[in-house]
Amino acid sequence: MKRIRRLGVFDSGLGGLTVLNEICKYNEGLEIVYFGDTARVPYGSRSDETILSYARQDVRFLMAQEVDAVVVACGTVSAIAIDRLQAEMDIPIFGVIPSAAKAAVESSRTKRIGLIGTAATVRSGAYKRTITQIEPRAEVVAEACPLLVPLIENGCKPDDELAELACKRYLEAFGGGRVDTIVMGCTHYPFYRRTFERLAPGVSFIDIGEALARELASLLPLAKGESTRVSYYVSDSDTGFGEIASRFLTVVEAKEVRPVNIEKY
Amino acid sequence: MKRIRRLGVFDSGLGGLTVLNEICKYNEGLEIVYFGDTARVPYGSRSDETILSYARQDVRFLMAQEVDAVVVACGTVSAIAIDRLQAEMDIPIFGVIPSAAKAAVESSRTKRIGLIGTAATVRSGAYKRTITQIEPRAEVVAEACPLLVPLIENGCKPDDELAELACKRYLEAFGGGRVDTIVMGCTHYPFYRRTFERLAPGVSFIDIGEALARELASLLPLAKGESTRVSYYVSDSDTGFGEIASRFLTVVEAKEVRPVNIEKY
Repeated sequence: MKRIRRLGVFDSGLGGLTVLNEICKYNEGLEIVYFGDTARVPYGSRSDETILSYARQDVRFLMAQEVDAVVVACGTVSAIAIDRLQAEMDIPIFGVIPSAAKAAVESSRTKRIGLIGTAATVRSGAYKRTITQIEPRAEVVAEACPLLVPLIENGCKPDDELAELACKRYLEAFGGGRVDTIVMGCTHYPFYRRTFERLAPGVSFIDIGEALARELASLLPLAKGESTRVSYYVSDSDTGFGEIASRFLTVVEAKEVRPVNIEKY
Repeated sequence: MKRIRRLGVFDSGLGGLTVLNEICKYNEGLEIVYFGDTARVPYGSRSDETILSYARQDVRFLMAQEVDAVVVACGTVSAIAIDRLQAEMDIPIFGVIPSAAKAAVESSRTKRIGLIGTAATVRSGAYKRTITQIEPRAEVVAEACPLLVPLIENGCKPDDELAELACKRYLEAFGGGRVDTIVMGCTHYPFYRRTFERLAPGVSFIDIGEALARELASLLPLAKGESTRVSYYVSDSDTGFGEIASRFLTVVEAKEVRPVNIEKY
């Protein structure tokens, strides 16, 4: 593989920032171009065809920024469109599922594994296929959580009563020790990790961004000892992306955010 | 004005169906072309520029269907983009604000009027301007309700605890008899009308679709005694629009729903 110095990362909106944060924790010396499709968020409630068409535009935009590889920092695109993107585009493309499935199987003692994700991610069955390829005895219980991305994108905090009520309702599917590990199958969900953990004590939650970032660190021949720089692009401006991003990012800061007309790509 | 037989109606998604329902109650003999931009819903959390660009495509699609006039069945577009659309497009375009403002002033005894709407609608100040043009002594109190459209679009019913909690929080801005009338400034909100009315007894809620439909009935030289037919188009398929629409429409049924690639318009 060509040495990767310039890495493209995209998501439908804010969720990919959790992945970006983890990539910056585990990797050094990168130039990262981050794109958040804030004009068309959320992806997870849309049809497979629309998700694929949006993802193609996102990758083409990042390729126009001359990145050496693309990270799909979106659980929905990783579940629905990754095979097509990898087949069609002449650039290495990394999705979040293989590393997350591996981390879940390693974490689970009982091999009863839960999945929370968008409607599209759950409908795809991608996690179940990947997890049972690694561990054929594994049982996967999946629950679609369509309201979590809108809650997070609208700034609803983890200890807000609305967030708690929504998380509690979705976690009921896993009650009574039905699983010992739950994959947070959407890159937005780490924003509510503390809430999930409080509501489901004893369950391990897998951060798909962290799993991917660890795997990237072992795969990519990266420069060490240099700092990582990030350029931010969004398809919709004036929606407070920079401010919200700064609140959530612990490793990198979102300062300048530039607009992109994504429908042109 | 040219006789209007074929009427285009659009919204970001499901909300416009409440307007469609009212138009069909108060008008007869129309051919209606309904477009729901389900691939890009919600509009209300996006920037003014993006909302205008989406609205232009929506109108151009309806004009390509040879409609005689367009109803903007979207509170956000009516607040943000109506002047530009009316100036740019060579077709009569009706927004929801003038008729709703008039209905609110007529309904209010105290002339203290509330507005609930999307972030973009509240930010625009359009209701305040229009209401105080009609009644200079009127006081307008506005509250942005960014979570209501995602809740409704994701099928959260009016008696659901999540819907109640969200509505209750947003209505707190109007507590203690601060207003006697509240404009539901987004065409999705009539889905939660019963919840609003239970939480704010004694307050009159204005349905912007009903206000517009009554006004249209007085303006349009329509054929009487004939039934109205509706064709449905959406920008995203497979997301259950037809089924959800059928649940909500009382006057017309959503049977066949056709897909549109809206980014081409």
